[in-house]
Amino acid sequence: MTDYSMAGRMAFVTDHMSILGAIADRFRRERPFDGMTVATRIHVEPKTGVLLEALAAGGARLVAMGNKATTDDATAQYLIDRGIVVLGARDDDDSTIQNHMRELVASRPDLLLDNGAEIIELLVAANQTVRGATEETTSGAITLRGPLAGRVPFPVLVINDSPLKAIVENKHGVGQSVIETIRSATNLLLHRRRLVVLGYGWCGRGIAQYGRAAGADVVVVEPDPIKALEASIDGFQVSTLDTQAPLGHVFVSATGHPGVITVVHMEQMRPNAVLANAGHFDNEIDMTTLRDVAEPSERGADITRYRFASGTVIDVIAEGRMVNLAVAGSRGNSIEIMDLGFSLQALCLERLALDPGSCLNGDQPVPADIDDWVAAAMVTELS
Amino acid sequence: MTDYSMAGRMAFVTDHMSILGAIADRFRRERPFDGMTVATRIHVEPKTGVLLEALAAGGARLVAMGNKATTDDATAQYLIDRGIVVLGARDDDDSTIQNHMRELVASRPDLLLDNGAEIIELLVAANQTVRGATEETTSGAITLRGPLAGRVPFPVLVINDSPLKAIVENKHGVGQSVIETIRSATNLLLHRRRLVVLGYGWCGRGIAQYGRAAGADVVVVEPDPIKALEASIDGFQVSTLDTQAPLGHVFVSATGHPGVITVVHMEQMRPNAVLANAGHFDNEIDMTTLRDVAEPSERGADITRYRFASGTVIDVIAEGRMVNLAVAGSRGNSIEIMDLGFSLQALCLERLALDPGSCLNGDQPVPADIDDWVAAAMVTELS
Amino acid sequence: MTDYSMAGRMAFVTDHMSILGAIADRFRRERPFDGMTVATRIHVEPKTGVLLEALAAGGARLVAMGNKATTDDATAQYLIDRGIVVLGARDDDDSTIQNHMRELVASRPDLLLDNGAEIIELLVAANQTVRGATEETTSGAITLRGPLAGRVPFPVLVINDSPLKAIVENKHGVGQSVIETIRSATNLLLHRRRLVVLGYGWCGRGIAQYGRAAGADVVVVEPDPIKALEASIDGFQVSTLDTQAPLGHVFVSATGHPGVITVVHMEQMRPNAVLANAGHFDNEIDMTTLRDVAEPSERGADITRYRFASGTVIDVIAEGRMVNLAVAGSRGNSIEIMDLGFSLQALCLERLALDPGSCLNGDQPVPADIDDWVAAAMVTELS
Amino acid sequence: MTDYSMAGRMAFVTDHMSILGAIADRFRRERPFDGMTVATRIHVEPKTGVLLEALAAGGARLVAMGNKATTDDATAQYLIDRGIVVLGARDDDDSTIQNHMRELVASRPDLLLDNGAEIIELLVAANQTVRGATEETTSGAITLRGPLAGRVPFPVLVINDSPLKAIVENKHGVGQSVIETIRSATNLLLHRRRLVVLGYGWCGRGIAQYGRAAGADVVVVEPDPIKALEASIDGFQVSTLDTQAPLGHVFVSATGHPGVITVVHMEQMRPNAVLANAGHFDNEIDMTTLRDVAEPSERGADITRYRFASGTVIDVIAEGRMVNLAVAGSRGNSIEIMDLGFSLQALCLERLALDPGSCLNGDQPVPADIDDWVAAAMVTELS
Repeated sequence: MTDYSMAGRMAFVTDHMSILGAIADRFRRERPFDGMTVATRIHVEPKTGVLLEALAAGGARLVAMGNKATTDDATAQYLIDRGIVVLGARDDDDSTIQNHMRELVASRPDLLLDNGAEIIELLVAANQTVRGATEETTSGAITLRGPLAGRVPFPVLVINDSPLKAIVENKHGVGQSVIETIRSATNLLLHRRRLVVLGYGWCGRGIAQYGRAAGADVVVVEPDPIKALEASIDGFQVSTLDTQAPLGHVFVSATGHPGVITVVHMEQMRPNAVLANAGHFDNEIDMTTLRDVAEPSERGADITRYRFASGTVIDVIAEGRMVNLAVAGSRGNSIEIMDLGFSLQALCLERLALDPGSCLNGDQPVPADIDDWVAAAMVTELS
Repeated sequence: MTDYSMAGRMAFVTDHMSILGAIADRFRRERPFDGMTVATRIHVEPKTGVLLEALAAGGARLVAMGNKATTDDATAQYLIDRGIVVLGARDDDDSTIQNHMRELVASRPDLLLDNGAEIIELLVAANQTVRGATEETTSGAITLRGPLAGRVPFPVLVINDSPLKAIVENKHGVGQSVIETIRSATNLLLHRRRLVVLGYGWCGRGIAQYGRAAGADVVVVEPDPIKALEASIDGFQVSTLDTQAPLGHVFVSATGHPGVITVVHMEQMRPNAVLANAGHFDNEIDMTTLRDVAEPSERGADITRYRFASGTVIDVIAEGRMVNLAVAGSRGNSIEIMDLGFSLQALCLERLALDPGSCLNGDQPVPADIDDWVAAAMVTELS
Repeated sequence: MTDYSMAGRMAFVTDHMSILGAIADRFRRERPFDGMTVATRIHVEPKTGVLLEALAAGGARLVAMGNKATTDDATAQYLIDRGIVVLGARDDDDSTIQNHMRELVASRPDLLLDNGAEIIELLVAANQTVRGATEETTSGAITLRGPLAGRVPFPVLVINDSPLKAIVENKHGVGQSVIETIRSATNLLLHRRRLVVLGYGWCGRGIAQYGRAAGADVVVVEPDPIKALEASIDGFQVSTLDTQAPLGHVFVSATGHPGVITVVHMEQMRPNAVLANAGHFDNEIDMTTLRDVAEPSERGADITRYRFASGTVIDVIAEGRMVNLAVAGSRGNSIEIMDLGFSLQALCLERLALDPGSCLNGDQPVPADIDDWVAAAMVTELS
Repeated sequence: MTDYSMAGRMAFVTDHMSILGAIADRFRRERPFDGMTVATRIHVEPKTGVLLEALAAGGARLVAMGNKATTDDATAQYLIDRGIVVLGARDDDDSTIQNHMRELVASRPDLLLDNGAEIIELLVAANQTVRGATEETTSGAITLRGPLAGRVPFPVLVINDSPLKAIVENKHGVGQSVIETIRSATNLLLHRRRLVVLGYGWCGRGIAQYGRAAGADVVVVEPDPIKALEASIDGFQVSTLDTQAPLGHVFVSATGHPGVITVVHMEQMRPNAVLANAGHFDNEIDMTTLRDVAEPSERGADITRYRFASGTVIDVIAEGRMVNLAVAGSRGNSIEIMDLGFSLQALCLERLALDPGSCLNGDQPVPADIDDWVAAAMVTELS
């Protein structure tokens, strides 16, 4: 039984995922997945619930498994009530998760929506194939291009490689939510604070832009000279972390590289400097070494103070995990951004269901016509 | 006994209230309140805790009472452990609150920090006087200038009349947090959404500015032609609510007037229009009539859908209460903004302690030299 | 005879002065100035030509006199061809100008549009009166409130005191054109240049805002702590000129005070620092002393280099005169901004023609209903 | 003999071309062009004068020829006085220009700086070769990739293909100067005006960004859905010209395609709509057909009104030529932007002088290490 509030939450999200809603309406008429089993490995929460309902509307039999520790149990129950098989719960331990992954493979899916390429690895290991798969993440794509290169006997469309995601999700979605989350976790103004942004890729550009809009004095650290010039002419001071370490009030990493903020930098920082990471992995701030050399204490929800023997004290948000997702109470990406990403997912799965021969085996980008269709739909939605 | 995390929270806040910190250091040396009892009527939470500690450092015996339902019990305990008398707890009922107000008066304070002029009313009724008082709010000032005009036999410095609060707190503090709270409560993008801002006073200006920075297409409704011209030349479309009701995606009121968003407007709105109020009172959106004519249902934490008989559905955040304070998890004003307001409080109380004769009886603005000193201190802090 | 191109220029300007155009249409029907002589002392150029035509449409006999060295002779001829008496030409010498001023008084005007209060002084000296006058400038208002206080036996409505002019003309009109003129005179980027803005009044706010939009790193120098706080929270660094003199790339004064940029400051500046003045008077940069101690040389149209004996070299735009007007080729205020100011002029003169008794003698602001009407008309125009 | 003011202008420009200045200093020591003749085909004006002086400092014998009707004769004389051979003057007729081009070829250059690939065509036709050449423009690159493909027996480095030029010159340089030039040519505010930008390439992005900063309500027309999405999420309304033709106040084309603004669009426009082109060719606005069907009249310098038989009247700036260059008094690109482009030129010519074997024959981009060096130098300059 789902409670009243779960239905309300799902309805609110559904009302604002208009592109996926239009796709679901068409799926309901055209039934592209009739007779097929679709296995999904993705957070079970209201926004993904809307995607699962769209696939079900298209005739799919769904077997859905969440990620570690992120399953929203109320959403799971809501989906189960609608006939979707949901494997796992928030508190599953590792061996239970392994069992669920095996169950997912054992469901003999026709199509797979993977997240991190873990199920694809199991399929390859088991010599089992599917009509096609999608992979949500860049880290999954790295596995596909590395250990799995040449070994996957079915097409895998990598959703995160779509230029739509770089533009909308990374620059604007992540950029804006990182700044809002830092504001909310610290309850501090950013006005006139020196905000040092490490990396001027898509995420870094967004963080710099929304940081400036929040009143901060943004300084960009970017070793690539062309990107650094772009930051300069966009109006940001460009510098090095060696120079900025003693000067910044807030530091945010978005480089994709481990260990860019070292303990040597941290020890030079001004008292109460705030550190956060916006990169996918929690190693851009060198937390491992930090925990060895500095003593932690709690400074509020999501903020940990580290005190060095020298007396230097810094405040790290969410222990260096991806700040816009890890801070308690953050809602992750906005509904419309997930609408865009899940519309790509739904249309890619449909393409694999109806015309797998149009795709090569192994990893490849989203077909250009699907990118174009979803981009045009979002432009219309925002007009 | 206070827990470890309470000490951490207090330390974090204290570290970022540098102006009040400098004042507290001076108070500790100069002891302006030695031998005096200071009664305070203000939320008991970490930021006010720092103010109370500053007054205590200056020699005051403190009797502190919170507002209805806002006392943070952990902060209260923390203060009690430091020798401050704290009256009341979060769950006090109305009669308990009345008792505490009487206790506050009975403590025979020398100085009073009031909030809403309720204690001043009790003192006047009791023919009891004090050396001087401060009043935090504009609504308290209205009482002082209305029913209490000419009847208060001691000076009352009205903190909220300081131009510093209009500039910093209303425009930037409220403006930015209203936009962030709407984003967080709805989990929606504002990009390219028509955001209708009612009122182009200080708060409205901030909401419009930060709304635009969040990507919204801002439309301002402002009947005063001079303010409307200011909105126009600042780049915002100016229109009427009658015109915009069917067009807006999000409506925010900041007018100071009751009933500006009527049910007639609401019934014309597009499906899933979002409404929020940023004004002090929860009557700018006519919730009373709305509840009579439309059926509510829950749409997520802090969002209530109202369905009209005609089928129109709108989503109201926090039931029309002040959105940046009422939404669950919101932290209220940023620490530095409270640092500024509480520095005004501390210096006004010191002035009343040391030189009450420099002030007239009845309500009056913060002395200009105190405004200037605090402004200059914040400029230095932000440099 | 006017040439074809003059008619084209007048038509272009007329087409974009829509508020004054609507007033002229009404004047044409209602003839408020029938039988009256209106004397005007104001630049003779196309935009003022539209104002003069509107007054003529309202039945006025016009005697128009330009300012020193600003009369556009083609416009003058165009107006003369339409029956307007125009006194003076661009190259008049001082004694000719004095003669024209006496002629203006001798025309026995019923109404006067003055500029700098010079004609009002002559009228007072001659014991001559008029139904009423308007005064365009703040410097005229200073004379009215100083030497002429209590001595003017007719009402003088001070146009420049209207809040509309502060908001639209000073902040946005002057702010934007100062930045554009500096860009055009120097042919330099402002991106990442330290632009030191002296003064955070209406003009300074505009210069800071548009300077930031042009990519500059803006630093504000403002001694008033409340205004300085406003600059800070608007996101600008606040500092002193003593600190910034060696650091700035471009300096712009907008303080209303003489000598704020001294030669002591100038001698500390970095090589090729650029200086400009946006204030009304050409004494904010101490050019008098500069010319005594440093050697000038030409660096391009409108730019003069000054070399100090120490070797320091700085570049001054337009010799410290009001940069957005003095640089060759600058067009002065935008057409719509003059539409607003001249609409105030036209309606004030109409009020004085029809209802002089509604005004007191001596200087006073524009009647509030006129401010409101013009503001509302411009809001409509910009909607 | 050069006049005093020419020396001043050259000195001002030289002082602000710091990257090229550092290169010239190195050239002076290292003499990379000793014994070589360098032929250049490029506007002769102060900024290119600095480039020519840098090459001469490196030991080159220079033969410089301007473009048609753009030679600044004072600059030419200044250069001649310094021993540079300058061919041609502002008023040369076509046959004189042809003669000069033949003289340039006859000078038997070792290195060539070409502009439009015209000299390269002559060299190829004459079976004459050089050590290497640079080509400034994209239109020259089109010739190199079309008619000349496979036929050029020496390397040609295409400067305009450098990503630095897209970022700095197209987006920021052109974007900002287009907006400033429209403001200056019309003397109109853009605040709250609907500015329709055709094309969301690098130039269009800049025009949209700086248009918004100037207060305009920007609408983007862009058929490519990915670019259109980028415009949307950057906060701009996206629409079609068919929809916007009757709605816009100002239209600017930056598409690279001919005839995008047709007379059918123009005839639907509101009275006094303003049109300008920012694309390289003067055919984006269909002026040819316009001149057939509508009657022109002058509306001020650089503005021509076209009246349709239907009565519709529109105002076209600079007859549809590249607005930021064609309007009288415009200075073209900012000095620092030319510093960047000419630094690429100087270093590419040095590479071709010292190590032509590192390049292939035919057209190719600027070597990556030169892009990186110049980008890093400009970042340092802007820090």
